Amino acid sequence: MAKAITPREENYSEWYLDIVKKANLAANSAVRGCMVIKPYGFGIWERMQRQLDDMFKETGHVNAYFPLFIPKSFLSREAEHVEGFAKECAVVTHHRLMNDPNGGGVVVDPTAKLEEELIVRPTSETIIWHTYRDWITSYRDLPLLINQWANVVRWELRTRLFLRTAEFLWQEGHTAHATADEALEEALRMQEVYATFAEEYMAMPVLRGVKTANERFAGALDTYTIEALMQDGKALQAGTSHNLGQNFAKAFDVKFSNADNQEEYVYATSWGVSTRLVGGLIMTHSDDEGLVLPPRLAPTQVVIVPIPKPNDALNAKARELMDELKACGVRVSYDDDDKQRPGFKFAENELKGIPVRLGIGQRDLDKGTIEVARRDEKTKSNQPIEGIVDHVVNLLDEIQQNLFDRAVRFREEHTTYVDTFEEFQAVLDRDIPGFIHAHWDGTTETELKIKEMTKATIRCIPQDQSEEPGKCILTGAPSRGRVVFAKAY
Amino acid sequence: MAKAITPREENYSEWYLDIVKKANLAANSAVRGCMVIKPYGFGIWERMQRQLDDMFKETGHVNAYFPLFIPKSFLSREAEHVEGFAKECAVVTHHRLMNDPNGGGVVVDPTAKLEEELIVRPTSETIIWHTYRDWITSYRDLPLLINQWANVVRWELRTRLFLRTAEFLWQEGHTAHATADEALEEALRMQEVYATFAEEYMAMPVLRGVKTANERFAGALDTYTIEALMQDGKALQAGTSHNLGQNFAKAFDVKFSNADNQEEYVYATSWGVSTRLVGGLIMTHSDDEGLVLPPRLAPTQVVIVPIPKPNDALNAKARELMDELKACGVRVSYDDDDKQRPGFKFAENELKGIPVRLGIGQRDLDKGTIEVARRDEKTKSNQPIEGIVDHVVNLLDEIQQNLFDRAVRFREEHTTYVDTFEEFQAVLDRDIPGFIHAHWDGTTETELKIKEMTKATIRCIPQDQSEEPGKCILTGAPSRGRVVFAKAY
Ligand SMILES: [Zn+2]
Ligand SMILES: [Zn+2]
Repeated sequence: MAKAITPREENYSEWYLDIVKKANLAANSAVRGCMVIKPYGFGIWERMQRQLDDMFKETGHVNAYFPLFIPKSFLSREAEHVEGFAKECAVVTHHRLMNDPNGGGVVVDPTAKLEEELIVRPTSETIIWHTYRDWITSYRDLPLLINQWANVVRWELRTRLFLRTAEFLWQEGHTAHATADEALEEALRMQEVYATFAEEYMAMPVLRGVKTANERFAGALDTYTIEALMQDGKALQAGTSHNLGQNFAKAFDVKFSNADNQEEYVYATSWGVSTRLVGGLIMTHSDDEGLVLPPRLAPTQVVIVPIPKPNDALNAKARELMDELKACGVRVSYDDDDKQRPGFKFAENELKGIPVRLGIGQRDLDKGTIEVARRDEKTKSNQPIEGIVDHVVNLLDEIQQNLFDRAVRFREEHTTYVDTFEEFQAVLDRDIPGFIHAHWDGTTETELKIKEMTKATIRCIPQDQSEEPGKCILTGAPSRGRVVFAKAY
Repeated sequence: MAKAITPREENYSEWYLDIVKKANLAANSAVRGCMVIKPYGFGIWERMQRQLDDMFKETGHVNAYFPLFIPKSFLSREAEHVEGFAKECAVVTHHRLMNDPNGGGVVVDPTAKLEEELIVRPTSETIIWHTYRDWITSYRDLPLLINQWANVVRWELRTRLFLRTAEFLWQEGHTAHATADEALEEALRMQEVYATFAEEYMAMPVLRGVKTANERFAGALDTYTIEALMQDGKALQAGTSHNLGQNFAKAFDVKFSNADNQEEYVYATSWGVSTRLVGGLIMTHSDDEGLVLPPRLAPTQVVIVPIPKPNDALNAKARELMDELKACGVRVSYDDDDKQRPGFKFAENELKGIPVRLGIGQRDLDKGTIEVARRDEKTKSNQPIEGIVDHVVNLLDEIQQNLFDRAVRFREEHTTYVDTFEEFQAVLDRDIPGFIHAHWDGTTETELKIKEMTKATIRCIPQDQSEEPGKCILTGAPSRGRVVFAKAY
């Protein structure tokens, strides 16, 4: 029931979990930190996948699949990468179970110990670059533009459905190039693909920026990020794209002979987004009545509710409307349950975030109108049946745009420019702190100190920002431009 | 190069691996038994996935995602299931690596031992039925029609790319029903979906049948199978659908209250097909020149080759043709490499199994014709440019049908009815043994004895077969009808 959702004001984190659970998006499983993605939640992820996959293919990428397991020794190859990833992960040590000789079910067969332990991939750079060694010999083999849809595992201590789970679903692009410039271009191109997806499909505005050395991906030269602002004023890193330079090529000895027949190490990128995006989607748009979905990603865009109950005439009208809407590419369903009252159904449909609800009652129909309710603004109006399909199609676009505009407005209202540490702290102490643009002296030392003092991290150094000399809010040392701080997920 | 493919006559198993490798479908990885699916191979799997997914949705199923890991104790719950699956599997025992104190890279952190070991799913019945317990309380929650696309791991000793690998990709449907009849209907429905997919998309004819008790899925009442015949006369189990009865519901205590408000255990099915299908596709149609793909699953259906080299006029003509073909939904590419001669390109395109090749040369174009080569029959003809698009569209359908008809003919030619063990053995000793219909006394003892003596197994008890009393080829005991024997993958 919609009523049982904890209001955001009361407890944002409970509100989030209530939405995830009551809208049937996901649930915790019997395995610590691993979630079950329920059909409705998976339907949203499927739409994200399909759209991203199309965008990857339009930019020249193909899909492939690499092993789930990584030999332990691979993680020792790239020095920084091992620091970043070879920590909390699932380690396979045996390959057989046997019946317990004492009758207690199954036990691990001690004789089936692996010679070398296998790690369940936390990310696939190492196994993929080991493979690329066999695939690349000449500049004619480049660029290699490959993506993989996969599950990965990072043994997180604190987990939260979609936002941070031990196992999650994602895509990881891994590309190989003949020049440093091409790799840089690719990393930036994919950051922009992510930004476009976030803004045009998720209706979630994002900042585009570069990560600091401290926040960058283990083994990368630079990490490009898109950062979104959630309704509680915390940032969500929504996607990252890494320019890996020649680091992985060197670690896995991947060389190519260039057009002048000289051997050179290959240049690389990697980039990924995950089921975390579903969490970001929820926290960007939803309200105390439940989920709010942008029409482009909603599994059901329009629901038709018969008022007060289904009957032959209303069913026929609904069927007719559905056919017309489907012909226009609208995903529509008919809520023909005859046991529940309209009020109950309205609340259910709101909880599920269905963008548009059409109420059809005999009295309205006789007057030639239909009740149209929009989920984003929770408003209703009576519309003429004549032209209703066009009206709905346009309304879906309007809702998509409105959600984006609303999120942009929210971000603007929660973006602050501060010049002193006092101001900085004051903004962070607000209920909804948001993005803080402030000067920083460029050192990891200062960055870590600020994090320790305030829990705020540097989300990114914005890419579209003009230079503006200033003084670091903590040390007063000179700065070339503001960076964006926030508390983050 | 196509030349390097081992002929089937010489060594069928080498021929298979040569195709997989030289057509760039897959490769072995650094992890024993795990394969890398290369972009071209993955392109075929993606088309299979998309089509199957559409068929699952048309039959009312939705997708979801369940955890990769299964607590070890779950495997002890269903007694038969544990016998069948809790053997060779990947066991996760630790959740952390650390830097080797002696400087030797990373080692497993002995303090990070899991309280209960986790098994990488070999199949998901147990974790899913544990979950369904929370989802099902009333008949109104049924049926539950869920599918998952996932990777699974079975620690196989002998592996072969696509056909048997430690990790493979598959889909697993897991449904829950209120009655035994409904579960049976569902199991049969999905077997038929698989058969339709195999025959209409893969152009691979299949036998529909029931597995014997000995060959059935661990924990099932009955396993329905589709069995295909490969060119070496061995059978391939291409898909299975299991009627699980109430076994898993009992093991995981999943009850529902029926319409009369009485508690009852839920009825279940599960069904799956895997990347093994790619192996079956290869072995059904391909030849000594390389891969042969049915048009409906070919990533590229038509390739245009300029003769002898690309030039402005030919490029313009190719562009025009491509636009027209694409407008008709044909997947077409242009082989405009100007470094390779046509003969080389023809061999490459044959190796890749592209169904139709269009050769465009200035002399032919002046005469108003185009050279059309079909991969299945390796024939060429000159066709008028006028109407070429219609010709190609029809030709693709013709090739699809021809591949199926050819495979049906092959199966007919390699199907034998025998009545004595001597005849049975003689057929099995042939180069291409095929399917053997013979009487069997219905006991597991006889089945195992025949397997031990001949390596042939009972592939299935055909569902469409009328009763025909007879005598078991081994024991002479009475039989109610013939079953199908074969050597199998
Ligand atoms: Zn539980
Ligand atoms: Zn290797």
